[in-house]
Amino acid sequence: MVSLSVGQQDRPESRIKSLGIQLPAAPTPLGSYIEAVQTGNLLFLSGMLPIVDRKPAYIGKLGDELDTKAGLDAARVAALCAIAAARDYLGTIDRIKRVVRLAVFMVAGENFADHPKVADGASDLFREVFGAGNMSVRSVIGAATLPLGVPIELEIIFELVE
Amino acid sequence: MVSLSVGQQDRPESRIKSLGIQLPAAPTPLGSYIEAVQTGNLLFLSGMLPIVDRKPAYIGKLGDELDTKAGLDAARVAALCAIAAARDYLGTIDRIKRVVRLAVFMVAGENFADHPKVADGASDLFREVFGAGNMSVRSVIGAATLPLGVPIELEIIFELVE
Amino acid sequence: MVSLSVGQQDRPESRIKSLGIQLPAAPTPLGSYIEAVQTGNLLFLSGMLPIVDRKPAYIGKLGDELDTKAGLDAARVAALCAIAAARDYLGTIDRIKRVVRLAVFMVAGENFADHPKVADGASDLFREVFGAGNMSVRSVIGAATLPLGVPIELEIIFELVE
Repeated sequence: MVSLSVGQQDRPESRIKSLGIQLPAAPTPLGSYIEAVQTGNLLFLSGMLPIVDRKPAYIGKLGDELDTKAGLDAARVAALCAIAAARDYLGTIDRIKRVVRLAVFMVAGENFADHPKVADGASDLFREVFGAGNMSVRSVIGAATLPLGVPIELEIIFELVE
Repeated sequence: MVSLSVGQQDRPESRIKSLGIQLPAAPTPLGSYIEAVQTGNLLFLSGMLPIVDRKPAYIGKLGDELDTKAGLDAARVAALCAIAAARDYLGTIDRIKRVVRLAVFMVAGENFADHPKVADGASDLFREVFGAGNMSVRSVIGAATLPLGVPIELEIIFELVE
Repeated sequence: MVSLSVGQQDRPESRIKSLGIQLPAAPTPLGSYIEAVQTGNLLFLSGMLPIVDRKPAYIGKLGDELDTKAGLDAARVAALCAIAAARDYLGTIDRIKRVVRLAVFMVAGENFADHPKVADGASDLFREVFGAGNMSVRSVIGAATLPLGVPIELEIIFELVE
């Protein structure tokens, strides 16, 4: 893996701009919790759902109402919400070094076989924004149900620049 | 959010006392693991179930045998077990600054829609004990099954006072 | 708990050797992620599946196609994959002090009752390799589905020797 020296144009805010990515509004809590907590140089986020304009952008089960492409899109939207939540907390995502841990929970039918492909909807976005040299570990788990009936929820820990 | 200077009467042990909260016995492992591990100033707990007197206090599925109120109570009992486990490890919960991460796993029927309300049974307890200025991030995930047939399991990371 | 002074023969690489444990090949990613990320003295691993020779060693549901013994074996194989992944990243597992967090996700039928026994397949292996004085916290959660149709996935955080 090649570690490039990182110029201004390679930093996450610039990358987002040059990729033409529009972030959704930062998510708001559904209960007695907050969207981000920093401890040391780790930033923990609440479970990120595919929410746009305060409403679920996708509802249903993968392999049933929703196909692989819809699942991948939902994972990407949830990842965009995560970046929006981090920017809301930090002021700028240039303070983010990488995603450390990404857990992807998805509601899928028993015969669904594209879990990794769906999860790449989130992982590929993070690779584009934070760089191929900063990829995360990942767990993919099939949930029975998720809040609001969405098919995807992401758990994320960011590492911040010291 | 207002950050109050914290006097003796605002510390977690005093809060528990003034709230009249009785903690259950600290949980005991069901296998080859322990209930708490500290690394740096983070205290990781094992999955907390709603256990009272060494027995599950709730068994069944939300939206089926158990309603939202029972789920919320089960989440609160599991959160009390978490505080008991932390006190057992630390000697006093005054060493706890906040909950950093709370993951709430719950067994719910396909049409159950009150995931966030149920999870507030745990989150509200932590807010009462550790303060509204110290709320955690939260993930809520529907599990297919949980150990002992309980409807709720909590994963918790505490941040300790340095 | 007795804390023994640790001699060369008690270190993880020696223990593995004297236990006659053969590690499988280190796992390879199924998508846009990597198998291990270190932050501070914590090493996060990707979700570990029971994979041998690049293929799932177990497929199916506990309490249905697979019994408790098969589940326990699958958990042990996934734990061996975790040790292989850590060695691949670190060069030697003697840099590992302990497992901090072990989450065991398992696909089990509604009437399956041996979740803790199955999870001990992983926990007991870690106890053998890292010592009884270094046990982890543990969460056990029933998933609806898992990637590749396997019955077990492990999420692991190691603490490294400073």
